[in-house]
Amino acid sequence: MTLTDETSAPLAHERLTTLGAALRVALDGPYAAERAVARATFPAGGALRPVELGIEESRAWTLARLQELQDAGFGSAGVPSRAGAHADPLEAALTFETLAMCDLSVTIKSGVQFGLFGGAIANLGTAWHHDTFLPGVTSMELLGCFAMTELGHGSDVASLETTLTYVPETDEIEVHSPTPAATKAYIGNAARDGGMAAVFGQLVVDGRRHGVHTVLVPLRDEDGADLPGVTTGDHGHKGGLLGIDNGTLRFDHVRVPRRMLLDRYGGIGDDGAYRSEIEDPNRRFFTMLGTLVRGRVCVGGGGAMAARRALSIATRHALRRRQFPAPGRPDGVLLLDYVVHQRRLLPLLARSYALGAAQNRLIGALVHVQGDDESTERDQRELETFAAGMKAMQTWFANRAVQEAREACGGAGYLSENELTALRGDVDIFATFEGDNTVLMQLVAKGLLTDYRHAWSALDRTGVVQATTRAVGELVMERTSAGLVLDRLAATARRRPEETTLVDRGWHALMFEERERHALESLARRMRAAAKAGGDSFEAFNRLGPHVQFVARAHMERVTLAAFVALLDTTEDAEARDVLERTCSLFALSSIADDRAWFLEHSRMTTARSKAIGDQIDALCRELRPHALALVEGLGIPRDWIEARILDE
Amino acid sequence: MTLTDETSAPLAHERLTTLGAALRVALDGPYAAERAVARATFPAGGALRPVELGIEESRAWTLARLQELQDAGFGSAGVPSRAGAHADPLEAALTFETLAMCDLSVTIKSGVQFGLFGGAIANLGTAWHHDTFLPGVTSMELLGCFAMTELGHGSDVASLETTLTYVPETDEIEVHSPTPAATKAYIGNAARDGGMAAVFGQLVVDGRRHGVHTVLVPLRDEDGADLPGVTTGDHGHKGGLLGIDNGTLRFDHVRVPRRMLLDRYGGIGDDGAYRSEIEDPNRRFFTMLGTLVRGRVCVGGGGAMAARRALSIATRHALRRRQFPAPGRPDGVLLLDYVVHQRRLLPLLARSYALGAAQNRLIGALVHVQGDDESTERDQRELETFAAGMKAMQTWFANRAVQEAREACGGAGYLSENELTALRGDVDIFATFEGDNTVLMQLVAKGLLTDYRHAWSALDRTGVVQATTRAVGELVMERTSAGLVLDRLAATARRRPEETTLVDRGWHALMFEERERHALESLARRMRAAAKAGGDSFEAFNRLGPHVQFVARAHMERVTLAAFVALLDTTEDAEARDVLERTCSLFALSSIADDRAWFLEHSRMTTARSKAIGDQIDALCRELRPHALALVEGLGIPRDWIEARILDE
Repeated sequence: MTLTDETSAPLAHERLTTLGAALRVALDGPYAAERAVARATFPAGGALRPVELGIEESRAWTLARLQELQDAGFGSAGVPSRAGAHADPLEAALTFETLAMCDLSVTIKSGVQFGLFGGAIANLGTAWHHDTFLPGVTSMELLGCFAMTELGHGSDVASLETTLTYVPETDEIEVHSPTPAATKAYIGNAARDGGMAAVFGQLVVDGRRHGVHTVLVPLRDEDGADLPGVTTGDHGHKGGLLGIDNGTLRFDHVRVPRRMLLDRYGGIGDDGAYRSEIEDPNRRFFTMLGTLVRGRVCVGGGGAMAARRALSIATRHALRRRQFPAPGRPDGVLLLDYVVHQRRLLPLLARSYALGAAQNRLIGALVHVQGDDESTERDQRELETFAAGMKAMQTWFANRAVQEAREACGGAGYLSENELTALRGDVDIFATFEGDNTVLMQLVAKGLLTDYRHAWSALDRTGVVQATTRAVGELVMERTSAGLVLDRLAATARRRPEETTLVDRGWHALMFEERERHALESLARRMRAAAKAGGDSFEAFNRLGPHVQFVARAHMERVTLAAFVALLDTTEDAEARDVLERTCSLFALSSIADDRAWFLEHSRMTTARSKAIGDQIDALCRELRPHALALVEGLGIPRDWIEARILDE
Repeated sequence: MTLTDETSAPLAHERLTTLGAALRVALDGPYAAERAVARATFPAGGALRPVELGIEESRAWTLARLQELQDAGFGSAGVPSRAGAHADPLEAALTFETLAMCDLSVTIKSGVQFGLFGGAIANLGTAWHHDTFLPGVTSMELLGCFAMTELGHGSDVASLETTLTYVPETDEIEVHSPTPAATKAYIGNAARDGGMAAVFGQLVVDGRRHGVHTVLVPLRDEDGADLPGVTTGDHGHKGGLLGIDNGTLRFDHVRVPRRMLLDRYGGIGDDGAYRSEIEDPNRRFFTMLGTLVRGRVCVGGGGAMAARRALSIATRHALRRRQFPAPGRPDGVLLLDYVVHQRRLLPLLARSYALGAAQNRLIGALVHVQGDDESTERDQRELETFAAGMKAMQTWFANRAVQEAREACGGAGYLSENELTALRGDVDIFATFEGDNTVLMQLVAKGLLTDYRHAWSALDRTGVVQATTRAVGELVMERTSAGLVLDRLAATARRRPEETTLVDRGWHALMFEERERHALESLARRMRAAAKAGGDSFEAFNRLGPHVQFVARAHMERVTLAAFVALLDTTEDAEARDVLERTCSLFALSSIADDRAWFLEHSRMTTARSKAIGDQIDALCRELRPHALALVEGLGIPRDWIEARILDE
């Protein structure tokens, strides 16, 4: 491993080891060129909000910084600036992750303004909305809110109470919050900056409810005062993201012209009658929400970047800091030479790579559905499930990784100058916003069960009357994006799994498949039993809650492994590939180790093999230890974007 | 369960359910009377620092608040105010935990001033130091620092670089920081308030080093300026505890009179020669450090209170908040009725009780050693091991519980007005200060291995030549505080463990014992092998790191279960006892479930039994669900001390 000055042009400003550069190219995957350009051109200097700033100063700093980035071309990426303009989902996702390598308030402010507010107008609105509002959105002259969540209805969008009632007499829509629980809450841009909101509520036309729709409502006059009938509130201090002015919105019979309704999927004709191309209100609801999937793709990827930044800091620190003299090490042992410390950080690095590979695939699926390709409703639904799961997995991981990084840096990790605590505070809420993670994992399981039901009835129809649950399970699994690659690998190990080594990829694939398939099949069985059982049906399903979470996680783990395996196959550099093979094994074994009780309980592994996993993980850590710096470089957070003083001393 | 107005006098201001009151008395245990008085008399109004305050305002607020509490008799509790005065360790521990029910900056400021600075003077000093400095310490006219940690030496006190060199010519001690790594770091009261520091460093007399000693060094003049040779620094913003002015101290050949050396265990005579009653420098070092054990007892207990506060908020919220309508529940399901939500919170409540029972025992051990009883060196050593483990277990738990509570409150949990994020930020560092938790767990394992070695050689001496490792392990376990109670219980289950129910206490005891004993024995074997093996001895032991952590944790789990079982035996109220029995089962099964892979790997459990544990945990959650409010009341955080607005709405 040698330092090289000769790297490709966009990386020229950063000195990377040869291996680090190769790992970075591998992990950047299909978007390596775009990401290299972003790193080389993004104005990252002074990118972190000074942590001592108070609330109002933080908000002002964040707005100014976003405006600056916008002026430099890094803000509204991916949002079309007018009707018919190309909305580039790839640019949106990559810009968001670049922003997330720096200040997360700026990142989320961008997400609120361009992704959510701009996205609602672009996706739910029609030409007049686009022409009228998108120029102001993209230039930031019109700052806006995405007013979906209500105090009483966090994750339950279908139950929103806000009403959007059509008033034929004046051809207006009356926006109203009928109860305190209907107050829009946690809304970014609501407390200070928002001049307008995309308000989600129940559309009522001629006394009939048509489900959740969205209307644009002006909030403030030019002096920033609430408009008549609008009451904005300020959530004040929060656990992080102080640069975002989260607040509340209440509407007291506020009227706006009919055309302010974002009516791409359902609207009101000149005759005052409701019309929609989608008959089924349920399908309409999910179609509307489905267009917003990009937000989840971005937030998950953003969380992953926070984790990478934290792991970069902690690992680089562990390569400099010595503690406790030992035989042969009079100046103390380098932190990363402690096995316990390796076990803290290296499996997290491995998981960062695995999730990065999966996120690349997710971005690919997003581009397929929202880009210029032809795509099916099935593609859309799979994208939603995949995005929900990746958002949950990556943001949970981010919380864990940042906290572990903080603790791995000891007392220094607690000083704000070393970035980790602010990162921790900011990323905390990623597990809740854009869909609470636990609820998102329910969506993942629901998607799998739907596939399962379809597969079952399809097999049934084609006369395979003896379709076993196993056959059905396999059918479902093959159809998912992770399908064939892992399946082929698993086949090599299936006959004599105990004769494979612990780093045999076929055995990993087999274990990941078996975990998901068995858990899914048994959940499907229990679901059927619950549906048939009399009594309290809520309770019958309620008891399956932990099982639902397990299935969703098992699925996401398999999808992630499949993505990592595919990434290995496309890695050309031999040394990078060798290191990534071990990294993949570390990821896979860590996942198996976490669930080894399950594998033992379900006779998928002998106790002897289970006991050996810990030592194998240690061995992999030892093998990867010399490549720790390169692995960190590969994560792609440029060294000079990190300001943590702990690395300067 | 009925609300009662008739509770014992000190609780009269708080309306508790009958069961809640009984649970509180049970958990308060031997200190129920003292704790009830503290709750009734502690001035908790306005007890939380306003979160928007900047650094300097936070420090000023914290100092003022502590002074106010001190004036009201709640600050310096447990620190003697003069030579020969009674130092009450019970009062110290209970006051600390009461403080920790409110603002943690105030709590830690109190700990720095009274526990650490005052404690160093009281424990390491002699009559002149007591008479001269303790009155100022207790009145807070003299604010001081506990200057142990150095930048280069976090957990490694023996390697401190600061030198305390005796200068016979002037009968002074010269305090010096020879390198940047010798800078005292993370020191509370250093950045702003400290007028003096108890500085730990290597004592050098006549060119000979005598190991770590402590000397009092004035830091600032009356205007707050650094005295000549002293350089104070400010760590500035941190991840929490903003009310504490942590900073750095450097000394450039600073001289103080000889008598400023805290010379209880080692000092310099009038003849200029070093003298100590403890010959062995190693033993002297550990004796000095041992006197400081109270800090760890307090910090662990304080972390537990933070967890209790957070769990109180999240559970009370889950008893009010509804989400998603379901069959038979048109207004939405109460959060705590979701099995997934029960699984999030109720096992944490159970662990809070378990740790509370163990902490009561730890306080008892502290009082035994530091109070008026006769105690042995062995008692002291056991106390240190116990305190180290409890500090680690409780502060790790606090971090986990507060974070889970935050997430369980969704977006509202992220608003500072609901206390959880500030609590999370404050408690974070508890896992690192007063001994990094990972290092403390090494101490626990070391203590057990020492016992093991002693038991082995004792058996050997008495002619039991065929002493099996099993017999030795049992001997070690019987001797620890958890010993006999659990052992008797385990005996009932040992013959046919698979025939017991999953809530059989004997089976729990057996599993906890087996886990610890087997892990300890195999660690001892591996240690012996490592010692014999040639090659790099550091690496040989380094590889045992994860095993060491497992042993320490298994031990602490057993000690905790033993304490909970003892608490059950002393609970007289029948309903409370019934609820606590289930709570204890939930704790025990959760612990077994977390390690069920281990039990399977070591043939301590069948797979069928292992698979049944999850359902049994769900069943216990269901049984405890109706008592959730009472369980929260039992935790002992008075409802009106909680300001979280989420509970007012």
